[in-house]
Amino acid sequence: MIVFYPKIFKQFSKCDMVDIHTVKLYHGYLPMVKANISRRLKDIPASPIRKLASYADQAKKNGVRIIHLNIGDPDIKSPEVMINSLKKINQNPIPYCHSQGLSELLKALQWYYQKLGFNFISEKNIQITSGGSEAILMTLMAVADPGDEVIVFEPTYPNYLSFAKECNVKLVPVSTSIANHFHLPESKEIEKKITKRTRAILICSPNNPTGTIYTQKEIEMLVSLAKKHNLFLVADEVYREFTYDGRTHTSLLNYMKKMPDKIIVLDSLSKRYSVCGLRLGAIVTLNQEVLDGSLRIAQARLSVGYIDQFVASKLTEVSKKYFSDNIREYQERRNYICDSLSLIKGVNVYKPEGAFYLIVGLPVKSSEDFCRWLLTSFSLNGCTLMLAPAPGFYITKNLGKNEVRIAYVLNSAKLKIALDILKKGLIAYNKTS
Amino acid sequence: MIVFYPKIFKQFSKCDMVDIHTVKLYHGYLPMVKANISRRLKDIPASPIRKLASYADQAKKNGVRIIHLNIGDPDIKSPEVMINSLKKINQNPIPYCHSQGLSELLKALQWYYQKLGFNFISEKNIQITSGGSEAILMTLMAVADPGDEVIVFEPTYPNYLSFAKECNVKLVPVSTSIANHFHLPESKEIEKKITKRTRAILICSPNNPTGTIYTQKEIEMLVSLAKKHNLFLVADEVYREFTYDGRTHTSLLNYMKKMPDKIIVLDSLSKRYSVCGLRLGAIVTLNQEVLDGSLRIAQARLSVGYIDQFVASKLTEVSKKYFSDNIREYQERRNYICDSLSLIKGVNVYKPEGAFYLIVGLPVKSSEDFCRWLLTSFSLNGCTLMLAPAPGFYITKNLGKNEVRIAYVLNSAKLKIALDILKKGLIAYNKTS
Repeated sequence: MIVFYPKIFKQFSKCDMVDIHTVKLYHGYLPMVKANISRRLKDIPASPIRKLASYADQAKKNGVRIIHLNIGDPDIKSPEVMINSLKKINQNPIPYCHSQGLSELLKALQWYYQKLGFNFISEKNIQITSGGSEAILMTLMAVADPGDEVIVFEPTYPNYLSFAKECNVKLVPVSTSIANHFHLPESKEIEKKITKRTRAILICSPNNPTGTIYTQKEIEMLVSLAKKHNLFLVADEVYREFTYDGRTHTSLLNYMKKMPDKIIVLDSLSKRYSVCGLRLGAIVTLNQEVLDGSLRIAQARLSVGYIDQFVASKLTEVSKKYFSDNIREYQERRNYICDSLSLIKGVNVYKPEGAFYLIVGLPVKSSEDFCRWLLTSFSLNGCTLMLAPAPGFYITKNLGKNEVRIAYVLNSAKLKIALDILKKGLIAYNKTS
Repeated sequence: MIVFYPKIFKQFSKCDMVDIHTVKLYHGYLPMVKANISRRLKDIPASPIRKLASYADQAKKNGVRIIHLNIGDPDIKSPEVMINSLKKINQNPIPYCHSQGLSELLKALQWYYQKLGFNFISEKNIQITSGGSEAILMTLMAVADPGDEVIVFEPTYPNYLSFAKECNVKLVPVSTSIANHFHLPESKEIEKKITKRTRAILICSPNNPTGTIYTQKEIEMLVSLAKKHNLFLVADEVYREFTYDGRTHTSLLNYMKKMPDKIIVLDSLSKRYSVCGLRLGAIVTLNQEVLDGSLRIAQARLSVGYIDQFVASKLTEVSKKYFSDNIREYQERRNYICDSLSLIKGVNVYKPEGAFYLIVGLPVKSSEDFCRWLLTSFSLNGCTLMLAPAPGFYITKNLGKNEVRIAYVLNSAKLKIALDILKKGLIAYNKTS
């Protein structure tokens, strides 16, 4: 607690706390005595995906339309069977559910994992969470105490940083780069970052923000490291199905039986079923201590929403065609955006293997300045573009300064306009700066 | 990281990490090398409200019906206007909302607070959360760093303990007792617990688990303490409307303008509208740093559920009669339960002033043993009773050992059966033990 008051306030000199109203009464003005927020709250970063939102709001007020490639909120329809189930809800009052999750949804998720070939996953290995977000936060709390370290690969999903700050866990970055399409470095490069405080390696594959899918070899290298150094290996696989060009995704679920105590898989329904506004995710593990502890955390927050869980439990009725159509659509968008980007002079682009993001190098010094400029000073036919500057996706300072993250979650017609704005915007920006 | 292996494994003696598969290969068996969960996860307690659930499940399997007075999940209907709104949702895909909250719900909450007479509360002073639960966790993170202290009054809402363990905040208890109906002790008793690590006083009024409503005098005593010692004063007011015998509730909102930086009010829609399964709560404050920081936490978890927020935004259309009917119903239940309890020999009971809980002293040595016995060894006409043993609501060891918390959330017919089971159960239990 920091209390500022002039030394002349002799009557307070023996205590470090001041009744501000007394001071006001005696001295006619208010000293700076203010309840202080926590250090950790100060340290939680603004989301790089949303930090330019106020500029976007202002642009909208000025009548400029904005194409949002900054955020992964897809325009793909949610499954009809889920939407229709809303009309069938026949529950009044709307009740708490079991803290582990609604029985129907637990059964549906068991069905889903078993259909993927993981017959050893049963309901009891699943903790349902409020979005993949809660799964991440719960898991960080479960594997690490304040000051403990978790290794991540940068550029990284920026909200990992916020969750880590919330529970005072230190994320230790291992850098990957556009030069090798954000694939992992050699084992020994990762090992350099392992200390006696390291508790886990946290990966995301298919990756947000890079779209990279780690190969079986890369995954097995991580499995070996986790085994050798007795670390948790936590895999965020919320984009599991989003793989292109016939690639397969190597899930950590494949290694769970071999290392039952060490592997934790994080999941979300948001992207798979295009239901971002249903806040549903899951922790999947064979580690009984993690399951028991996660359930105790879950009990404290009582329940995930009943309606969301009821709606999502219809996932067993979603057709295969729903996925194949969506994956084809995303692959076409990816092809379009990569082909178009590669034609813009000075742009550094690769073909992402999965998810629906990519990191792009631009011919600018500061992508943040350029992204802000797009919102404040540029438009084409009354329309401009919102992108996420990449520095917020890196933990190491001064990395990614010329990069942006693009989420190709909009249809081709919108992507075409967006790319045109980007191309002409870059020319105009580089003339002005 | 603890690794156990016999000293004969000489080849490992120079490192403190062991590749378990190598060890197995060389020595034919597996040493105890296991990824360790965090200290904090171990420390998170099981919910006293739900900890006897496995005994209840077993009783149900044995064909015994159970009346649940252990948990505050009311049978009161949700408002029709909310239930009907589910059929009007016309949004596909189901999208993320703004991290602060859905605009319609923010407007509805502003309307609600202004209708209560707090015209200074506008949308920008409200952060919508996933239940009151998330509001509590976010606020603990916002006001305290690991090792910092927050004063609470015991018996307390037990999930405060879990949230505090999750973010490594120390809850320091000030005891209240059934003898004075769980009202607050004198100011100097509270002051004894204030140290230089104290960051906040957290209260709940009307109180869960005691039903006590702090008087204006008590609230003003806390306001003075917060001012004098420069502490946050955090008020969980999720039962604000549940006041009986014409009592008024003194909300901390009344003092917010006087101490804009220090007061944080936590809210929930769960009980007010009997929508526990819609996960919606709020943080309300004039402290801009807390609002900014809460929003950054909220951005990390992206959004609260769209559907829940859409449904709840109809709160402006809920009739006054909905509340007056429900409050009358709860008051009648309270009267019935208190009158009946006072007729049971050896029971220590008072008349709770609000909410829908009370703590009751029973003529037993261990309420936990008695509650377990009710589930495992007693029934009346094929029916038994589940209560929450009170020790889990206390932080100080050995307090509340003969007490239980009762939630009177069921109709009178069920309460009558429940009280009959309790009465006859106590006689039978005290004969056997």
